[in-house]
Amino acid sequence: MATLEYDKRRALVTPDRLRHLFGARRLAVVGASGTSSWARNLVRSLNAAGGLKELVFVHPKYPELFGQATAPNLRDLEDPVDLAFLMVGPSRVDEILEDAAAAGIRNAVVLAAGYGETGQDGRARQLALAEHARRLDVTVMGPNTVGFINATAGIAPWAVVTERPPLKGAVSAVFESGSMARAAHEFAQGHGVGASLWASVGNSAVLTSLDVLEYLLEDESTRAIALFLESVGEPDRLLALGRRALERDKPIVAFKAGRTEAGQRSAMAHTGAVATDDAVVDAVFRQAGIVRAESLEELVSTAGLFGHYPERPKGRRMGVVTSSGGGCNIIADLAAVNGLDLPEWTGDTVEALAEHLPPFASILNPLDTTGFGHARARPRPTKAEDDLMEIAVKDGGIDFMFTMMTPLPSSRPEDPTFIESRLEILGQIVRDAPVPVYLASNTCLDLADYPRGLLTAAGLHLMPGADLALKSMGHLMRWVDLRASVLADDPPARVTADRGSGPAPTGTWAEDEGRDLLAAHGVPMVPAALVTDRRDAARLVTEWGGPVAMKICSREIAHKSDIGGVVLGVDSPPAAEAAFDRVVAAAATHAPRAAVRGVLVSPMRAGGLEMLVGVTRDPTFGPVLAVGLGGVWVEVFKDVSLRVLPVSPRTVREMLLELKAAPLLRGVRGMAPVDLDALTEAIMAVSRAALALGDRLETLEVNPLRVDGAAVEGLDALVVTGARS
Amino acid sequence: MATLEYDKRRALVTPDRLRHLFGARRLAVVGASGTSSWARNLVRSLNAAGGLKELVFVHPKYPELFGQATAPNLRDLEDPVDLAFLMVGPSRVDEILEDAAAAGIRNAVVLAAGYGETGQDGRARQLALAEHARRLDVTVMGPNTVGFINATAGIAPWAVVTERPPLKGAVSAVFESGSMARAAHEFAQGHGVGASLWASVGNSAVLTSLDVLEYLLEDESTRAIALFLESVGEPDRLLALGRRALERDKPIVAFKAGRTEAGQRSAMAHTGAVATDDAVVDAVFRQAGIVRAESLEELVSTAGLFGHYPERPKGRRMGVVTSSGGGCNIIADLAAVNGLDLPEWTGDTVEALAEHLPPFASILNPLDTTGFGHARARPRPTKAEDDLMEIAVKDGGIDFMFTMMTPLPSSRPEDPTFIESRLEILGQIVRDAPVPVYLASNTCLDLADYPRGLLTAAGLHLMPGADLALKSMGHLMRWVDLRASVLADDPPARVTADRGSGPAPTGTWAEDEGRDLLAAHGVPMVPAALVTDRRDAARLVTEWGGPVAMKICSREIAHKSDIGGVVLGVDSPPAAEAAFDRVVAAAATHAPRAAVRGVLVSPMRAGGLEMLVGVTRDPTFGPVLAVGLGGVWVEVFKDVSLRVLPVSPRTVREMLLELKAAPLLRGVRGMAPVDLDALTEAIMAVSRAALALGDRLETLEVNPLRVDGAAVEGLDALVVTGARS
Repeated sequence: MATLEYDKRRALVTPDRLRHLFGARRLAVVGASGTSSWARNLVRSLNAAGGLKELVFVHPKYPELFGQATAPNLRDLEDPVDLAFLMVGPSRVDEILEDAAAAGIRNAVVLAAGYGETGQDGRARQLALAEHARRLDVTVMGPNTVGFINATAGIAPWAVVTERPPLKGAVSAVFESGSMARAAHEFAQGHGVGASLWASVGNSAVLTSLDVLEYLLEDESTRAIALFLESVGEPDRLLALGRRALERDKPIVAFKAGRTEAGQRSAMAHTGAVATDDAVVDAVFRQAGIVRAESLEELVSTAGLFGHYPERPKGRRMGVVTSSGGGCNIIADLAAVNGLDLPEWTGDTVEALAEHLPPFASILNPLDTTGFGHARARPRPTKAEDDLMEIAVKDGGIDFMFTMMTPLPSSRPEDPTFIESRLEILGQIVRDAPVPVYLASNTCLDLADYPRGLLTAAGLHLMPGADLALKSMGHLMRWVDLRASVLADDPPARVTADRGSGPAPTGTWAEDEGRDLLAAHGVPMVPAALVTDRRDAARLVTEWGGPVAMKICSREIAHKSDIGGVVLGVDSPPAAEAAFDRVVAAAATHAPRAAVRGVLVSPMRAGGLEMLVGVTRDPTFGPVLAVGLGGVWVEVFKDVSLRVLPVSPRTVREMLLELKAAPLLRGVRGMAPVDLDALTEAIMAVSRAALALGDRLETLEVNPLRVDGAAVEGLDALVVTGARS
Repeated sequence: MATLEYDKRRALVTPDRLRHLFGARRLAVVGASGTSSWARNLVRSLNAAGGLKELVFVHPKYPELFGQATAPNLRDLEDPVDLAFLMVGPSRVDEILEDAAAAGIRNAVVLAAGYGETGQDGRARQLALAEHARRLDVTVMGPNTVGFINATAGIAPWAVVTERPPLKGAVSAVFESGSMARAAHEFAQGHGVGASLWASVGNSAVLTSLDVLEYLLEDESTRAIALFLESVGEPDRLLALGRRALERDKPIVAFKAGRTEAGQRSAMAHTGAVATDDAVVDAVFRQAGIVRAESLEELVSTAGLFGHYPERPKGRRMGVVTSSGGGCNIIADLAAVNGLDLPEWTGDTVEALAEHLPPFASILNPLDTTGFGHARARPRPTKAEDDLMEIAVKDGGIDFMFTMMTPLPSSRPEDPTFIESRLEILGQIVRDAPVPVYLASNTCLDLADYPRGLLTAAGLHLMPGADLALKSMGHLMRWVDLRASVLADDPPARVTADRGSGPAPTGTWAEDEGRDLLAAHGVPMVPAALVTDRRDAARLVTEWGGPVAMKICSREIAHKSDIGGVVLGVDSPPAAEAAFDRVVAAAATHAPRAAVRGVLVSPMRAGGLEMLVGVTRDPTFGPVLAVGLGGVWVEVFKDVSLRVLPVSPRTVREMLLELKAAPLLRGVRGMAPVDLDALTEAIMAVSRAALALGDRLETLEVNPLRVDGAAVEGLDALVVTGARS
């Protein structure tokens, strides 16, 4: 990304400045022609939103545009407008920004493309634009943006087609892609997800998605935030804002492409972002308390759920009432997949439900009202599922209720009495319920104006179909857990200063040097001695009374086994002397110029589990801790847990328990359970050792870290450092 | 399920009979009242569909209904109608069916609920209804069905709300849930997926989903089939019909709940189906050449893709052109997740594209047209992505093209010239393309009538958003592979006859008996001798010259280790004598009444990979072969591949290669690759041994089956049989 450094642009993007930008009621459009579809769309959006006080067109050539007289230049306006919307090509942007600044205008939206998204040169042009804006003290949104919609204020400088007035609500969204912002907004509007602010930040020369996020944390009409990210520019700030959002109870849902190598390649091409392992992004989101959606629709549906319901369920226990047996089965599957529990109804609930169901009905959770429910005459205009739900919400064993509705009529029926009274009663049932009640339509269809109006009047929100609904509820529960987990620790003091001490090697360290570093920070390492005499090796075999491993030790020999520099299972003094000669000779033959420090002798270990604990430096996120099972299992099953450093012991424990191999740590098939406290402390020590290397750290790895009950011991160490920056 | 046996109902459900049922142009509705919403909906659906020739209401009480004179009884009709739609309660169904039969009516739809879905008694009532229908020679659809829509013929006896005439197309669907049938139909109609037949089979007393499937394989207007299953009643028939569908190039997509334990419990409660491991269902679908969708929306979208495009791509290489950089990244991610490749464009294509793009544009796949594309004046009413796609479809390195479109206007704009000409040209580009071109809207929104009309006129089909589109295309490619895989083998001769020979134990077999069975069928087993004298054990240690394992051998001692009946690593004659005494004493102490056959002595083995090969009998699908890595890895990582027997060696090889652990078989980290031919032959031998037990088989397991390069050897055997049925 080509974004001005935060320190340089900070004054332009404070929440205060953004309040002015997003609240702009007087707007000038510069450079639009009467035939431009961008301009036509913009005018249509502004009119539909209805809250603008003044719209003026600025054009040097056309005396009139869209039926009103133009001004030739921004400098000719009597009073400065709140916001200039630039529709000029990239070559004229600088000049117009100067006009804006001269006219006292402090905010500009730049539509023009042809900047950072086009490659190296474009990124340079974009940075120049940002510097220019900074000198002029103009907050620039864009370039390459379609604008924003402030539905709360009724202001929509939004240069793509909108077909109806924006639906107001508590969800705000920030998009790093204009076309996806538009698509998501239309999906939201089509499915009754009301918005507060919907912003497309474009290329983020000055104003970034995190700036808008910070603003939204202060914005009272925003209750939930949807983020569409193409890259993460300021990881520390993301972590800090994420935490603040948790503290303020404003959930953030993010969708970020680059999950796969192909997606990452594509994103790098479009944004110039640096490659980062997507698993690291996952870890960062988790540490920032952000839940991650897997599709645009899931992003909107999840944010919509958060936006509609301010209260949070106390747990994952879900009660379900619906009129479809097939629906029950689907919901039960989706509940399991999304981590929601379906407890049995309590005896009281079963008894109460039984009164309203035929004697042979199975009273299960999910509850199917059965065809009999439909047939029964009802004293009020409700459906069977409504009445049964009213009973079931009182169940003491559930944390929330879910129900799936058959489609509502898309237009007002000849006799609307039933449907209108029903929704009113349903709204009352939901309001009176002791637990949150979540509703969904039974498939993902648009809500027409008529049913949407009824739902809004009744205070109800329908999620778009079972699949998205259960995914959204799964995210809600995940967020509740994440919040508890993140807020359980103090805010981490991010380590950025170089705490590396004294001179140390650059490149791959010799194993004894790595061992010393690790041991100094408290990592329990297997005993080892560096010997330079064959007789010392022989003596150690006797001393340790068992087979030993012997390895050549040199900074220049990274792959010791490959050159014959390792002998395992050496079990007698003569064998030790022979092994000593063998590994030294191997080094002399295959790495004649390597400075050999000696031969490292260690007792052999057997049994237990072999873990891998490593820290590598990610170009964006800095030191990242990886914990997993060692050997082929990490390679084949990719069962690794990641976090950016620093972490707390609580987090390390969480990492261990989220491994697929966690059952092995807890002990299966007669294996003893691992002492998680001892293992956690060893991993903390590894991360201390890594952080001590400061910005010289490239890789630090203990592999294997052998764990056997309470015994934890590093068997091998790899440390690679770069030059001090 | 309470369904009449196939042999008894076969004559009622032949494709010929169903042609008559689904083609019914003269319909009688029995038992409807004027205030029933079922009846109102039915009338509305029939009118909207428009193809019915005669509709008569039959009611003993009301002389007039829905504005027309009624008949008091079906027997009073002058000519028999094609179909009677029964809206009476369950108590009157039998009687009305008798009337129908007496009047010469051969088809009935039974709406009434309160049968099999309500439990044991209901299932008995349902079977009685089925027997009754059989005696009367009336094909009954239902009970508990909402009917069907034959869009091709314009006939829609469909008792739930429909808001517009059914959209015709090439997709047919069979649902075992009425409400899900309705939801899916509305999703299909809302997203431009045209239907031929849409049937809700309800409780399947007589007519089942497989009967309809068989009919659809003959139906010329059906090109793709969507199945919503709650259980699988006739596995052999499903496999046979699946294969026939592949031969006729009619893809089947299935959605079946019960993926999780919760979903399965729910489905069992609603259908009375037997529990089956869902992984077995997956295996059966694969063997039947059926692709499995994970949601209602995915089911419809995938069937829609198959329905619109009769041609199949030759491979997975996808070219992408779109106007959204963010969209490109999402598509690249989804491509990887759904197994689609994104090759680079060939040099020729890059050259041709470059002429239409600014010099700095990166010409990648996915291709983003960039903002510059939009700005460029075009000689014809197209967008940049259309023109670029026209070039890119000619790329010799792709098998198909995908493009994602920004939303079309929902109603006719004041000046429709551009949009209408554009779609016409786009249709032409797609028709002229040398590879299939798949299109999607950029999010999941309903298609309004206007854009749907334009698309239809241009011969275009839009999938509902990137997520569903890429999932659908992934299923398409999977189906192409499945078809090749299934049709590569001859149709399997299903093994149902008892081929077990002679008397054999019931219950758990002693290990030596199991070994003998396996060896007799060609499974390479580790050498072993059953000894009854301690001196024979000692002699074997000398003979085999290495450590041996010694195990007590008795049918009554299943868990030998638990009682101390196993000693490993016995490495000298005296140790062997001692071990013999120990295991015999352990048996005498812990299982004093067990008939001990002796002590089994085998050489110990080390190294290699330990596989698990087992066959268990599934209550629905019969013998199921499981192959995976043994030990804790199968327990923890659940990495097992399943197929119902019999299988071909080709299929066994496929099973091995689809394991997550497949890289281990191919050799990683210095481990020698496994001889797949030898391993496959051993697994084939295990399955022969299992099939030889006929219907007495309960479990047969070789665990571990040790594999080390070309050496394959079973180390332990477990056989459990039941009484001959």
